[in-house]
Amino acid sequence: MSKLRFNIAMSLDGFAAGPRQSEEDPIGVGGGQLHEWLVRLAAFRETHGEEGGEVNASTPVVEGWFEGVGAVVMGRNMFGGGPGPWGEDPWNGWWGDDPPYHSPVFVLTHHAREPQEMQGGTTFHFVTDGIESALAQAKEAAGEGDVLLAGGASVAQQYLAAGLIDEMEIALVPVLLGDGERLLEDLGDAEIELEQLRAIEAPGVTHLTYRVS
Amino acid sequence: MSKLRFNIAMSLDGFAAGPRQSEEDPIGVGGGQLHEWLVRLAAFRETHGEEGGEVNASTPVVEGWFEGVGAVVMGRNMFGGGPGPWGEDPWNGWWGDDPPYHSPVFVLTHHAREPQEMQGGTTFHFVTDGIESALAQAKEAAGEGDVLLAGGASVAQQYLAAGLIDEMEIALVPVLLGDGERLLEDLGDAEIELEQLRAIEAPGVTHLTYRVS
Repeated sequence: MSKLRFNIAMSLDGFAAGPRQSEEDPIGVGGGQLHEWLVRLAAFRETHGEEGGEVNASTPVVEGWFEGVGAVVMGRNMFGGGPGPWGEDPWNGWWGDDPPYHSPVFVLTHHAREPQEMQGGTTFHFVTDGIESALAQAKEAAGEGDVLLAGGASVAQQYLAAGLIDEMEIALVPVLLGDGERLLEDLGDAEIELEQLRAIEAPGVTHLTYRVS
Repeated sequence: MSKLRFNIAMSLDGFAAGPRQSEEDPIGVGGGQLHEWLVRLAAFRETHGEEGGEVNASTPVVEGWFEGVGAVVMGRNMFGGGPGPWGEDPWNGWWGDDPPYHSPVFVLTHHAREPQEMQGGTTFHFVTDGIESALAQAKEAAGEGDVLLAGGASVAQQYLAAGLIDEMEIALVPVLLGDGERLLEDLGDAEIELEQLRAIEAPGVTHLTYRVS
């Protein structure tokens, strides 16, 4: 059956973003440290049109993120462009004309907007009626494929608390942010059971995968 | 040089103990889940005089805890027996007549007490003048050996915040406690840098080792 999979980077002290998120610091002050292991990979650089970079134990993990994925769900904060209405020349994401998703992407927002078709098979759909609707639309679009929840932390919390996530992959980064947005809190009364599926050691990060039930 | 090493179990959401710690629930409600991977190991059972148990990827990790260790430091809560003065028939720890330490153990407490010699080379010394004194006494006793900080969370926080820990091993357990005693908070202004040394996947736990500076 089609699964809802989720991956995110988290500091050892549990934060998915640093404090004081802003347009200049979209993942908060110090939050960039959560992705240092990622941005130096060749597998990451080539999706951003850059050459060079490392190949290491993280490479197959990152390449696996989109394997079997038929649609993507993400929060407005992850999509970017700041809060509020979209304006006349709206933000189309961080990823340029050819985003790495190559599939329908459902963006959770309070502000309605027409679908935005990009190059390479990515179309951004804007969903204003909640996480369950976004997931239903994504599952419909994905067909036999899985749905990838691309973040950020607050959307992930909502899906976790609602018991809708099937598999969670955490890139655990050896840094202490001390403050910011915690990933695994405010989960309400949800009884979440985790089964550890694998742990992969890589330079500057450990990739942990759990089945969620 | 002699190092201060520290190991502890932590839930995926960052707790080293559950809520409402008491004599009945010494690591808090639900906190026992943090050690399920440990208590089923043959390597653990034999230090408690029991037969049987599993041998798996955690076995060499657990056997390594005491390798090269010349002395141990622990908090009063870890030593157990409840808070307050020691009384006439004082508590001698959770471990029976022959504790698994086989070396001098320095217990941090507010209540003075004469040293308590146990079988097998373990002697409990009770230190009332703070974490730095306990560490100095333990290093003196350890000679060329390392000092093991055996927990619990609040003592570990104090040593971390003071910049005194050299190596930290976290047994990361796939459970969400939701509440309790967080390991990696209240570290003050300490600028703690972590270098990931290794990550070992084992049944029901991942062992993460970091150099601390």
